[in-house]
Amino acid sequence: MSQSSLTLLQQTSELRQAIRRKEHTGPTSGLATGVMQGNVVILPADYANEFLLFCQNNPVSCPLIGVSEIGDYSMPMLGKDIDMRHDIPEYYVYRNGDKVESRTDIEALWQDDMVAFILGCSFSFEHALSQAGLTPRNIEEGVNVSMFETNIATTPAGRFHGNTVVTMRPYVPKDAIRAIQITSRFPKAHGAPLHFGTPEAIGIKDLSKPEFGDAVSLREGEVPVFWACGVTPQLAIRNAKPPICITHAPGKMLVTDILDTDLAVF
Amino acid sequence: MSQSSLTLLQQTSELRQAIRRKEHTGPTSGLATGVMQGNVVILPADYANEFLLFCQNNPVSCPLIGVSEIGDYSMPMLGKDIDMRHDIPEYYVYRNGDKVESRTDIEALWQDDMVAFILGCSFSFEHALSQAGLTPRNIEEGVNVSMFETNIATTPAGRFHGNTVVTMRPYVPKDAIRAIQITSRFPKAHGAPLHFGTPEAIGIKDLSKPEFGDAVSLREGEVPVFWACGVTPQLAIRNAKPPICITHAPGKMLVTDILDTDLAVF
Repeated sequence: MSQSSLTLLQQTSELRQAIRRKEHTGPTSGLATGVMQGNVVILPADYANEFLLFCQNNPVSCPLIGVSEIGDYSMPMLGKDIDMRHDIPEYYVYRNGDKVESRTDIEALWQDDMVAFILGCSFSFEHALSQAGLTPRNIEEGVNVSMFETNIATTPAGRFHGNTVVTMRPYVPKDAIRAIQITSRFPKAHGAPLHFGTPEAIGIKDLSKPEFGDAVSLREGEVPVFWACGVTPQLAIRNAKPPICITHAPGKMLVTDILDTDLAVF
Repeated sequence: MSQSSLTLLQQTSELRQAIRRKEHTGPTSGLATGVMQGNVVILPADYANEFLLFCQNNPVSCPLIGVSEIGDYSMPMLGKDIDMRHDIPEYYVYRNGDKVESRTDIEALWQDDMVAFILGCSFSFEHALSQAGLTPRNIEEGVNVSMFETNIATTPAGRFHGNTVVTMRPYVPKDAIRAIQITSRFPKAHGAPLHFGTPEAIGIKDLSKPEFGDAVSLREGEVPVFWACGVTPQLAIRNAKPPICITHAPGKMLVTDILDTDLAVF
């Protein structure tokens, strides 16, 4: 492993420790760039197999990169000493499909039958886009990425069903083409976009009013480009109504020890 | 080599022979699919080095796949027994930059100082698009692809300069994204598109009036997608005004023995 990779993993470990100590409770976008960040879904075992199938059925919006053993809050395949009860800056807690609270740890809520799922996140390719000179507008403007619910149905699995959530980043067409090439290399981070251009074609009414995250500016000649988003499961959870479900707060992810490039293709 | 490849090369040889006997003088689009077809530029040696640099400077519109020895009308790196004087269905002859005639052979015009250049052609990726279920509209409608002069300047070399010519194929955004991925695999056939969406952003006024080839229909929800085109050199030749230059007629290409897949990446 190179010296720069070692330095990055040291930074990653420090960031995860700072999150664990609740010193960092904000978004993780732009931090520890170069390692994968993950969307989090924690469910009771009774719902876990159906959710596993839901991810399998919807690999673009739900690219699974890690699943815990039942009741085990570590995640050894994604990083040393990960504690799923503490290592997310902010958790959302859903009961019967409704979001009831947000917390900075879930130690008091952890159950012996819980299974944690980690899904790849578009932050992985944001790093690659920035390195190619195509810095996403949300990073330029220092805000959370814009996220929208679409009318693109997911493939249901058991009690899990709902529409796909997308992130949006604006580019001029020439740069959008390059962005499609670059993000295609990262299938475990949602890969290529689902759509570009007309928001209404996928059921988005107003780009200035994202359902999650922040609005970003569109400039002359730019088109909105839409990628599948790991917030998609949160809509399916609302529909599945499990007695309890815990997710990350949008934009505040699990920081792993896996390099983005480790899961890149080509 | 597989049996199917042998069969394809037999078909290719027969097509080239039919062209040589002037039995086939039409477009080569959709014929001998699976082998590369080439754009043709034949110039006197005095202009050849500058044109070689022009191709090097503009590799997306002018992806060189073969260059002959001075005065040699064979092209052994691209096929057995190719005769550049006879093996194109229709030639255009330019004198001092003006097109003066079209011919079905150039035996009477061949000079000892001539150099033939062969450039990759988007027909190579049309085959891959069709296999992926994204059959280009021009193939569906049985016409020549639409070609347009843009306001995108090429990088000049000596006396050669001019704007880029593009081909246009309409797709809905979802399919355009897949088409970008597929055509990216074929850098020697112009690779990924240069632009999509607004034609006016690249200087195209009316999609129903292509400068070369035929118009195709745009359907509800589709956007035009634009790829660089091997007709680009013909504009540069008009500007360079060599005493003589011979090209293929748009859509009527040199059929080579090289499989499309031989020059694909990934």
